Amino acid sequence: MAETGAQVERVLDRVLPKPQPGEPPLAEAIRYASLGGGKRLRPFLVVSSARLFGVAESCALRVGAAVEMIHCYSLVHDDLPAMDNDDLRRGKPTTHKAYDEATAILAGDALLTQAFEVLADSETHADPKVRIALVTALARASGSAGMVGGQALDMQAEQTPLTEIGAITRLQRLKTGALFEFSCEAGAILGKVEDSRRGALQAYAHDMGLAFQIADDLLDVRGRAEDIGKTPGKDQAAGKATFVSILGLERAESQARMLADQACRHLDVFGDRAEALRAVARFVVERKA
Amino acid sequence: MAETGAQVERVLDRVLPKPQPGEPPLAEAIRYASLGGGKRLRPFLVVSSARLFGVAESCALRVGAAVEMIHCYSLVHDDLPAMDNDDLRRGKPTTHKAYDEATAILAGDALLTQAFEVLADSETHADPKVRIALVTALARASGSAGMVGGQALDMQAEQTPLTEIGAITRLQRLKTGALFEFSCEAGAILGKVEDSRRGALQAYAHDMGLAFQIADDLLDVRGRAEDIGKTPGKDQAAGKATFVSILGLERAESQARMLADQACRHLDVFGDRAEALRAVARFVVERKA
Repeated sequence: MAETGAQVERVLDRVLPKPQPGEPPLAEAIRYASLGGGKRLRPFLVVSSARLFGVAESCALRVGAAVEMIHCYSLVHDDLPAMDNDDLRRGKPTTHKAYDEATAILAGDALLTQAFEVLADSETHADPKVRIALVTALARASGSAGMVGGQALDMQAEQTPLTEIGAITRLQRLKTGALFEFSCEAGAILGKVEDSRRGALQAYAHDMGLAFQIADDLLDVRGRAEDIGKTPGKDQAAGKATFVSILGLERAESQARMLADQACRHLDVFGDRAEALRAVARFVVERKA
Repeated sequence: MAETGAQVERVLDRVLPKPQPGEPPLAEAIRYASLGGGKRLRPFLVVSSARLFGVAESCALRVGAAVEMIHCYSLVHDDLPAMDNDDLRRGKPTTHKAYDEATAILAGDALLTQAFEVLADSETHADPKVRIALVTALARASGSAGMVGGQALDMQAEQTPLTEIGAITRLQRLKTGALFEFSCEAGAILGKVEDSRRGALQAYAHDMGLAFQIADDLLDVRGRAEDIGKTPGKDQAAGKATFVSILGLERAESQARMLADQACRHLDVFGDRAEALRAVARFVVERKA
């Protein structure tokens, strides 16, 4: 994962705009929001799923960079005072704290826009049909029926806390799950695979994504700011319903492990070649940050 | 223009998410920000340039809808308190006033994202290469090297007012010109035209876009809120340098007319078939709203 992270970092560094003297801090803020941090989990999913189908690494890395740009833009906008109002992210001041709100909004917009430019570039794949399929899938995963829709549900849940596990599951499937699903399916799209193996990756992404989110809720309760790089206990303080507040610590933990196991079993069809994806499923429930 | 406006409205109405009972106001805000208002100038440019090359109207209208979604998202984000802090837009409360800031940010993000989904859809054009070219061109026109970059320059100019006409021209070329250029070139992309006619449309868009912006600055000084649908005199009150503050009213007006004439002359190569585009150039300098 560290190796993929470093490779994605190089792709991002190459495609992102360079700061110029006398210019507004936009390029700087774009880089601040997306370089030098994060686990690069989504790019790792893209690269690992692409390897199953023998896709060229350079293609997978560009798709990984695009999905990371979407992920980073969403963090910048979600951290804004009008949204989650967070001061700390990945152990650093959030983008609107390091710059200002206007610059943070624009940096998010620019990252979101450029993600599609990166996918549409012929360097990402020689076949324009593949690039179009990637653009469509990423737009669906991140728009109002995906990530942005999930964030809107999250905002609504701050006013009217969710009470049942089904509603929280739906929220998280949209807010974080949709981008995980895209990341895992991207390998199949790049490999032009339309058969049941694509469905297996989807099922894996679904269970792994939920396990990830439950583990995230657990970290919010148990984690230390130094480890998780953001303010802990925020959900609880905001009276937000989470998997942990509804299931309790112990059941949430066993549920996360159960989902991670189930996620791994969906990968049986790939045999040993899916070991990296299995390791991700184990990692997301065992991580301390 | 009214007819194209009504047709684009129908496309938008069809593709935009529908509000559902009990759901967050996201879909409502997306529709509020993009339906039932605006001159639909950019879609008209797309449709008019596409007609020059015999492109199917249904294709041009979808590209028109996509560019309008980008335009509308930019208005929603630019109106936010952290940016231009506007309460009134097209004679109605701005989106963050009608809903709230978080919803406005997310509605903008969703519109921006869906614009690329609309372009990537096979309904927009049968040839995936054409769709990819549209995605690339729109991303470039609206990202950090286009519209968003222009808005960042505009924010910077509020702190350090621009003093020379070259700097203002550059700002406007990015902030509003890039999307006009995309709209005019879209016809050539849809028609798979790569020759000098594409350059002619680019030159037209450049001059017409500048004429549009000078006329906009004139309206900000002379217009009445009832006509222009937004608060007049804002630039002056904010101490912002504009074409009018630097050139003066009379020179700004003659400059706008000169640019509109020049824009029309770039269309000579198309003969009478470009009459709609010539009418746009005349319209932008003569409009009262």
